[in-house]
Amino acid sequence: MKVTALAGGVGGAKLADGLSRLDQSLDLTVIVNTGDDFSLFGLQICPDLDTVCYNLAGLENSQTGWGRNQESWVALKEIQSLDGPDWFQLGDKDLATHLERTRRLREGQTLSQITADFCSSWGIGAAVLPMSDDPRPTFVKTDRGVLPFQEYFVRQGCQPAVQGFIFQGAKESAPAPGVLKAIRDADLIVICPSNPWVSIDPILAVPGVRNELKGQQVLGVSPLIGGAAVKGPAAKMYREMGVEPSAAAVAEHYGQLLDGFIIDNQDLVLAEQISEVSGGVLQVYTEDILMKNREERIRLAGQVIDIGKDLVKEI
Amino acid sequence: MKVTALAGGVGGAKLADGLSRLDQSLDLTVIVNTGDDFSLFGLQICPDLDTVCYNLAGLENSQTGWGRNQESWVALKEIQSLDGPDWFQLGDKDLATHLERTRRLREGQTLSQITADFCSSWGIGAAVLPMSDDPRPTFVKTDRGVLPFQEYFVRQGCQPAVQGFIFQGAKESAPAPGVLKAIRDADLIVICPSNPWVSIDPILAVPGVRNELKGQQVLGVSPLIGGAAVKGPAAKMYREMGVEPSAAAVAEHYGQLLDGFIIDNQDLVLAEQISEVSGGVLQVYTEDILMKNREERIRLAGQVIDIGKDLVKEI
Repeated sequence: MKVTALAGGVGGAKLADGLSRLDQSLDLTVIVNTGDDFSLFGLQICPDLDTVCYNLAGLENSQTGWGRNQESWVALKEIQSLDGPDWFQLGDKDLATHLERTRRLREGQTLSQITADFCSSWGIGAAVLPMSDDPRPTFVKTDRGVLPFQEYFVRQGCQPAVQGFIFQGAKESAPAPGVLKAIRDADLIVICPSNPWVSIDPILAVPGVRNELKGQQVLGVSPLIGGAAVKGPAAKMYREMGVEPSAAAVAEHYGQLLDGFIIDNQDLVLAEQISEVSGGVLQVYTEDILMKNREERIRLAGQVIDIGKDLVKEI
Repeated sequence: MKVTALAGGVGGAKLADGLSRLDQSLDLTVIVNTGDDFSLFGLQICPDLDTVCYNLAGLENSQTGWGRNQESWVALKEIQSLDGPDWFQLGDKDLATHLERTRRLREGQTLSQITADFCSSWGIGAAVLPMSDDPRPTFVKTDRGVLPFQEYFVRQGCQPAVQGFIFQGAKESAPAPGVLKAIRDADLIVICPSNPWVSIDPILAVPGVRNELKGQQVLGVSPLIGGAAVKGPAAKMYREMGVEPSAAAVAEHYGQLLDGFIIDNQDLVLAEQISEVSGGVLQVYTEDILMKNREERIRLAGQVIDIGKDLVKEI
């Protein structure tokens, strides 16, 4: 079964990891948001791509959700002693990823080539594709001005009130090699429980992606449980954008893109509402979607695939 | 007493460190070769500047001569696992220096501003000046072609036979702010026991430096003892350039630039020869010039200053 997942950071990485570890081996491709990418110390840093890869490789820090496990912080401590910026936590192992990626980019390799090589070094079986090899920075329009994503997200801790989003260069960007084909050839598309505004929307804004998705069976997993995000500012963003945050809001956000949508058991009351809003077109499923450990990732991934198979049959 | 030292890597750093730790406090400026500087992983690396600063700060790795003490190698190990280049040994602490320097350079700060800031963070009392804020890469002409310095020095382990040296951009480069003044105002100039070909000559090639040195009292310390270099390829270079390596060869190398020259006690027999070649103009002194530990650095530095004072009186 060919499965293509769209993913951002931590939540998406967890489900992608679960999908990659199912007993029934899938032909899995993960298309990852690169709108969060930025440059610091001259290094090209791709937070979502790294979070996905570290998780797929089993190298992730399960406490923080980002970065490497058994990480050390020697370089960062020295940077602090030189009064350098320490708002973005760069561990020593993580640094190596950015250093070698930057070196290869400067040599002329593309982000997708580099990512494929890194995945091979890390023993990752799934294909991990950046959404684009072109720079596609996300900016956040806020009450404190237009901020580069990491400035908003990490440096200002998501404090500014969001007014909108800019996906710079979206129209001119090309999908990375393999992205459109991975969508076209997939038996099932999974929209991972990532932030719709800043993790999934940037992928959907890549020219050609929405169009390819139209003919496909798309199953989403809600990033919101009980109106709150498991991690990150998704709920806060909905509120600031004038929408009551809930799994229903996410379903409406994706609209006709979705054929199926998995929400948490505790949001059972929303199931009917979501289905009704779609005119009965959208199939809504309830599961325990919180993934607190690797076993729960695999369990949810199994449910996603089971539901996906039903969905594919139905359609 | 105002003392200005010209220095390259390890040997120069040791004597500069000794000078900075004398009981009689000197007004010390160290002008450092930047011809070894290069870029790796997009980072600007200044090996001689860092070696001098780490030594002056007491942060140096006394085993290797370069790099930081109590260093860790987490990032490098990860770079290796990604099949990245590991020929240049970047420790985690050392990496922080290159990261923060690169960040500041990209912000538009000059190498001399950055170096001054770093010295302040590291508690260094001496003024450390890069010879130039302009890129001034040294290339080595060898039997294997023209090689960037670090390619020759580290990656190929000084194996290629040297045929000459290119100080790229020398004529167009400007001395860093303070360099000419530090020479002009000094009571004594010390040419540290650094490689004449690739550590000191690049400094002497900075426009204005030789001219300012002419009027000054210049005391050199031989980098060669018994015809061999304490560290590095200086002796091999002399041989390949058709000159028998010895303290006498170094004295001849610097020629009329020198007013005094300190050679090792074991080269006593050369003293008369060196003096004769100069027509009796050059004062030659013999000392134990090998610096095996910090105490010996300070001892030699004290002798350099004592001799320097005599020299200044005599002239």
